[in-house]
Amino acid sequence: MRAAIFRKGSFVLGDVPDPQLQPGQVLVRTKACGICGTDLHAARFTREFVSLAARSGGRWNMDTERDVVFGHEFVGEVVANGPGTEGKFKPGQLVTSMPLTIAGNTVIGLGYNPDMAGGFAEYMPLAERMLLPLPAGMEPDHAALTEPMAVGIHAVEHFGVNNAEVPLVIGCGPIGLATIAALKLHGHAPIIAADFSAGRRALAKKMGADIVIDPAVESPYQALERAITPDGFDAGRYAALFGLGPKRRPAVLFECVGIPGVLAAMMEGAPTGARIIVVGVCMEPDGIEPFFGIVKQLSLHFVLAYNAQEFAATLGHIGAGRLDVRPLITGRIGLAEVGQAFKDLASPETHAKILVEPWH
Amino acid sequence: MRAAIFRKGSFVLGDVPDPQLQPGQVLVRTKACGICGTDLHAARFTREFVSLAARSGGRWNMDTERDVVFGHEFVGEVVANGPGTEGKFKPGQLVTSMPLTIAGNTVIGLGYNPDMAGGFAEYMPLAERMLLPLPAGMEPDHAALTEPMAVGIHAVEHFGVNNAEVPLVIGCGPIGLATIAALKLHGHAPIIAADFSAGRRALAKKMGADIVIDPAVESPYQALERAITPDGFDAGRYAALFGLGPKRRPAVLFECVGIPGVLAAMMEGAPTGARIIVVGVCMEPDGIEPFFGIVKQLSLHFVLAYNAQEFAATLGHIGAGRLDVRPLITGRIGLAEVGQAFKDLASPETHAKILVEPWH
Repeated sequence: MRAAIFRKGSFVLGDVPDPQLQPGQVLVRTKACGICGTDLHAARFTREFVSLAARSGGRWNMDTERDVVFGHEFVGEVVANGPGTEGKFKPGQLVTSMPLTIAGNTVIGLGYNPDMAGGFAEYMPLAERMLLPLPAGMEPDHAALTEPMAVGIHAVEHFGVNNAEVPLVIGCGPIGLATIAALKLHGHAPIIAADFSAGRRALAKKMGADIVIDPAVESPYQALERAITPDGFDAGRYAALFGLGPKRRPAVLFECVGIPGVLAAMMEGAPTGARIIVVGVCMEPDGIEPFFGIVKQLSLHFVLAYNAQEFAATLGHIGAGRLDVRPLITGRIGLAEVGQAFKDLASPETHAKILVEPWH
Repeated sequence: MRAAIFRKGSFVLGDVPDPQLQPGQVLVRTKACGICGTDLHAARFTREFVSLAARSGGRWNMDTERDVVFGHEFVGEVVANGPGTEGKFKPGQLVTSMPLTIAGNTVIGLGYNPDMAGGFAEYMPLAERMLLPLPAGMEPDHAALTEPMAVGIHAVEHFGVNNAEVPLVIGCGPIGLATIAALKLHGHAPIIAADFSAGRRALAKKMGADIVIDPAVESPYQALERAITPDGFDAGRYAALFGLGPKRRPAVLFECVGIPGVLAAMMEGAPTGARIIVVGVCMEPDGIEPFFGIVKQLSLHFVLAYNAQEFAATLGHIGAGRLDVRPLITGRIGLAEVGQAFKDLASPETHAKILVEPWH
């Protein structure tokens, strides 16, 4: 089958073996698959991914010498049921799945695996047990956004962000935008978002941000300070009566950039008692100044991906229109254009999410 | 009055002006005052303290050019009630206080203030409103441990450590030992503690640690892994029956060292889902590898000091014998020996807490 193959640092269009179905697997024709920020990271930092994964007690199958076919944000169509399946899905059924398949008793990650092509190829051997049928009437391509939107849902739900907290999202790439959408879905307000790119700020507005900040013009932390400090007459009057400082709302900040230095700046800018949820994936060593954490009694929560329930719920939210992913889809390409798209995604003004359509 | 004066990097015995009582203040004769790790930091990193405090929006009155009299862990005896006091305390009454006094409407920190001597001097002008009388029958010197022990109480209580979590305390200096004592008080078990010093490990045992680890011999993180993984028959059997991995207890780690590199090592060593409570005060920039936080979804909570309720409760715990501070007191000196004591405290085998007795 045709695939966009990542080979020693660049992409080539070529052929890889067709999937051989294992018991319990279903052959799925890939309709669309998004390019993820982690794909860009993995292409650039393959060596670091492998070494850090080993040190954390897991493993990362990619290495710099072997071909790999990326792609883990996909929607597809059932083509054939393999041996030992229950036949729950008829050919033609639209499905998505967490980017995992199952062979025997082994769960296998898809999208960074040199032994099994991900979604930037024509077909995938998915596990029948993990397939989620698309809700009736759902625009098929929108299901390819389930994976990145689930990251936003997880970021907001995993450590129990509550509605008293005023959220500030730093960085409005796809993960920041997914976080904004999840905050909006759960009724958080006001949602403040900051990005140097005008295009990204416009997308942040569309996804639900109430206040958007250009950090080149205004400090997002000052905007947050204003938002958490009540300006009502009664709040000030009661504070004065009881000899208290003004009661402020708590703050929760989302790090959605993932490059060194951002966390340190957020710790310096955050208000006292704030929580910082780290959603951006920084693969490099980073520097912080613990003093700011200490004097302000900050909490940092690191989050990863989503769980199965969050993934399924996210598909439901998108299917029902509670999460509108249309603004995120800024391009559609074929397999031959994947290499160029990885370069194009460096420019935030043009693109948020590019969908690869292997049959384009 | 006589004082141990910190002057341009070293200590001299000398005279400073007697306190002039402001309305609401009480003259207290200092009986004993502990030397704190933060004192050692402040003597060594004065410039960094000042600059970091300014950047965090507060201020730190010390500077490198002016004399200062340290001392903020004190117990004393009421000598005289100043103007505008209610006379709640008779001369001779033993008291302690948070290291703050009040002049007019201004709260003033004691212990790092070039304008007002701390506890390494004969007298202090304390606020009547903040004085806590010692419980009847309490050994007076033990009240000087209220301040550091309150740091341990706050570390355990502020972010709600619960008894399902297995605690690992990294570093058994006075703050680590206070944390161990607070964990013991609240019934946490098993308490694991690690320190390179045999003397400190012996103290950790006395303060309530169940398992003590010499990191030169054994990894504290492996000890923690064993403690959180149940080895009972039923746990394993049910896990197998339901196709689950073994249920593990959550883990909470306490950083009680405060030097660069410790937090990064703890993030690499911590089990999945752990919380790390940062109690040690690292004044220098520090490096972390966010990847370990992400793949294990760690939380870092930074804590500072204690609040007024925690301080008062800690005095009550010590007075009632629920917190036994006797093992911590390893030396008693006069004002002339403060400089030498700052040097001696660099050796963990000899000392934990040295009490300065200005009338020695």
